[in-house]
Amino acid sequence: MPFAPFDWIDDEARRRADAGLVRTLRPRPAETELLDLASNDYLGLTRHPEVTAAAARAACRWGAGATGSRLVTGSTTLHAELERELAEFCGFEAALVLSSGYAANLAALTALSGRGSLIVSDAGNHASIVDGCRLSRAETAVVPHTDPEAVRKTLRAHDGRALAVTDSVFSVDGDAAPLAALAEVCRAEGAALLVDDAHGLGVLGEGGRGALAAAGLAGGEGVVGTLTLSKALGSQGGAVLGPARVIDHLVNTARTFIFDTGLAPAAAGAALGSLRLLRREPERAGRARAVATALYEQLTAAGLVAVRPDAAVVSVRAPSADSAVRWAADCRTAGMAVGCFRPPSVPDGISRLRLTARADLTDAQIATAVAIVRRTAPDA
Amino acid sequence: MPFAPFDWIDDEARRRADAGLVRTLRPRPAETELLDLASNDYLGLTRHPEVTAAAARAACRWGAGATGSRLVTGSTTLHAELERELAEFCGFEAALVLSSGYAANLAALTALSGRGSLIVSDAGNHASIVDGCRLSRAETAVVPHTDPEAVRKTLRAHDGRALAVTDSVFSVDGDAAPLAALAEVCRAEGAALLVDDAHGLGVLGEGGRGALAAAGLAGGEGVVGTLTLSKALGSQGGAVLGPARVIDHLVNTARTFIFDTGLAPAAAGAALGSLRLLRREPERAGRARAVATALYEQLTAAGLVAVRPDAAVVSVRAPSADSAVRWAADCRTAGMAVGCFRPPSVPDGISRLRLTARADLTDAQIATAVAIVRRTAPDA
Repeated sequence: MPFAPFDWIDDEARRRADAGLVRTLRPRPAETELLDLASNDYLGLTRHPEVTAAAARAACRWGAGATGSRLVTGSTTLHAELERELAEFCGFEAALVLSSGYAANLAALTALSGRGSLIVSDAGNHASIVDGCRLSRAETAVVPHTDPEAVRKTLRAHDGRALAVTDSVFSVDGDAAPLAALAEVCRAEGAALLVDDAHGLGVLGEGGRGALAAAGLAGGEGVVGTLTLSKALGSQGGAVLGPARVIDHLVNTARTFIFDTGLAPAAAGAALGSLRLLRREPERAGRARAVATALYEQLTAAGLVAVRPDAAVVSVRAPSADSAVRWAADCRTAGMAVGCFRPPSVPDGISRLRLTARADLTDAQIATAVAIVRRTAPDA
Repeated sequence: MPFAPFDWIDDEARRRADAGLVRTLRPRPAETELLDLASNDYLGLTRHPEVTAAAARAACRWGAGATGSRLVTGSTTLHAELERELAEFCGFEAALVLSSGYAANLAALTALSGRGSLIVSDAGNHASIVDGCRLSRAETAVVPHTDPEAVRKTLRAHDGRALAVTDSVFSVDGDAAPLAALAEVCRAEGAALLVDDAHGLGVLGEGGRGALAAAGLAGGEGVVGTLTLSKALGSQGGAVLGPARVIDHLVNTARTFIFDTGLAPAAAGAALGSLRLLRREPERAGRARAVATALYEQLTAAGLVAVRPDAAVVSVRAPSADSAVRWAADCRTAGMAVGCFRPPSVPDGISRLRLTARADLTDAQIATAVAIVRRTAPDA
């Protein structure tokens, strides 16, 4: 037998090619003329001179890396400062910073559940939540999308520790979870509530304090939030927010926290820089929402089918996977980058363009964006 | 029933406190007089002016964050450049950069195994490998530490796709895996070999090309490597190295790659800066190994029980968990930071001090370090 342990990979590659589902990396240059409606830079902060200067300053002052795991040499006073200010801004007792939002979700889910406990997870939750459920060894019940009654029934049928988990704003369609109803259900059933506010922080709530603050749930007894520093805050990393005892518990038990190198100082510094800028310019949050609403209204007025945005993501329906890919490519040719979601990334099988609103888009740019999407739209 | 979904956390915290196993974060300042033998900054590059300047420059040129997942807006030509140079340096066809070494291991293990396949994993493997096995849904067989014959027997008993996985250098004791023997076993049994070179890159092999290059295995047909950018390269992030078809497969299927924000430009720039510096100053790798050997020889000459280092980690045995903690604390009081591993981080139940060699430690600093460890040693 010839030694060819990876030949099966070629078979899978052929199947992907036949189905037209090959993904390829397309590295971008530092400067581009493309109008960006694809990134998650919701507040337009990632290239803000104050934010990049904060990143540069942190790298020069603290070094390019954290040099070790957070419990050995990887915690600096810069990390502590970021954790304090994040917790305060979002209205929680404590916060813990990790190297990504993905790691934050794995940490929170594995540390707060475990064998014998139940996790109730929305069918539309992000991949990092799905993976956190798998890693946790808890029993996981996937419930229909944004359905608090299904959560209630599932929790009620379970005896013992339980946790409901949801995205605050769903990445694909940009729709929001019914947080108030979910919190009420969890309270009634004695379950904890974990909310991934990756797409809410900086966009929802007063001055961008996030979906949990907006729903009056921040700092609540049984409420834990996760978030990312790589979207509205324009940096890299993730965080868990919650009661101090929950954060202490994660420090002691969460494997993706304990066994990972600490977040690089430049990323911590940039996130802190963005946070302080957002405190000074709280109107950026409202502007991101207003841009999303304007995009939605102008697109639907033009006859396109879009989901009313609850935050800064606007999802536009495409007739098929193939046409979605062509549509996104045509937008690019016309000078605009947009996201394109199709199977297997979207479990419901519906392909869509994904447009992201940025607080720094001008009204003229919004009009251009709408004109391009409309002009390149496939026949339904 | 009062609503208190996290009360069980207090019970666990009490149990930890009773067992003397509470972990607390101790943020460090930017400048310290402490002699550092705790970080994984093996080549002393994390604060090298060239490396921090590369981080700062990348943040200012590209922005503080990658702005999206690698398949949407998060791939820059800087990432592509880093991937090309990493692959070339380590002797592989292609490379893929992720936000952490943890994410790299999860990506490689989940994408290269799966239900119905077998993973054979060394009992001493890092937490990220253990979690990758769990996430993969493959059957996982844990074999005794550094035992190629056990790997052979386990592979032989399995019918179908298989993968053996090992750290190149084990984080706790600093001992090396028998890579040549493992590769031979894998080849004979038709299995792939995945090697996490987190502690080998920059330290082992000619000019720090890593353990796989040192063993003549880099670029081999069935060989995949993972590594971290946060140790010898002084930055943040991780990577997978392998045949181009394996890397393409990861781009298309690895969830921790697809659904994570790309690595921040500052971290990619710093890693690239370190890599180029190491190419110019290849003697740093040998110096890190020489420092580790000197530490080991002087410590054992002083009557302490240490493991002969295969790379830059020197493990010194402590009589108990309590005494290890006190020993590390006494070292700190005496002006030196060292690592301290104890249960549950060490599954074998043996507590130890963990000293890391750095290429930039002077002979005088080595002598000081040995004197401090010796002076503060507990009675056996």
